[in-house]
Amino acid sequence: MERTPPHPEVSQFDLQQVLEALVDPVRRSVVTRLVAAGEDIACGGFDMPVSKSTATHHFKVLREAGLIRQYYVGTSRMNALRRAEMDQAFPGLLDALTTSRAAAR
Amino acid sequence: MERTPPHPEVSQFDLQQVLEALVDPVRRSVVTRLVAAGEDIACGGFDMPVSKSTATHHFKVLREAGLIRQYYVGTSRMNALRRAEMDQAFPGLLDALTTSRAAAR
Repeated sequence: MERTPPHPEVSQFDLQQVLEALVDPVRRSVVTRLVAAGEDIACGGFDMPVSKSTATHHFKVLREAGLIRQYYVGTSRMNALRRAEMDQAFPGLLDALTTSRAAAR
Repeated sequence: MERTPPHPEVSQFDLQQVLEALVDPVRRSVVTRLVAAGEDIACGGFDMPVSKSTATHHFKVLREAGLIRQYYVGTSRMNALRRAEMDQAFPGLLDALTTSRAAAR
């Protein structure tokens, strides 16, 4: 059984889609948290001020834009930032959006 | 008579507002064009695929986010990229969004 959801290749990354993912403050906070943590985090490990179904939607938008890679460990869905691939496609973008000063605004 | 519209100070720049301005492809194309041109451009100098009133709205959103400074020369409303101030507030953001590779996506 294939439980890994589809992920775009780097060559498919689209700036418009990435910006639409990151313009949402809740989704941007997920990315900022992953940058700060420096490690993968389970969906349940984010303190998101939204319902579970909305949170699932937010993770899907991030995954489809190429910002995160999702995989299972047992019943936990884990989230990994696709840092290197995003930096390859759009150099400097994640840095610009997740530095402490930007994140505080 | 004061014809110069209000502009935010750098200290008032807000990342959420800047991203909401830049997530629109037409508005992002205005910024990319100003970066490429390296000089101020009159509102009429942009080839925007929208009505004049919609174009005016797009310029207003960019101005209110701090991305452009508008001023008059005779009856022409000119647009200047606030490059240095935006780089000060959000280092690397404009570079990341307007490099040739990003602009092409």
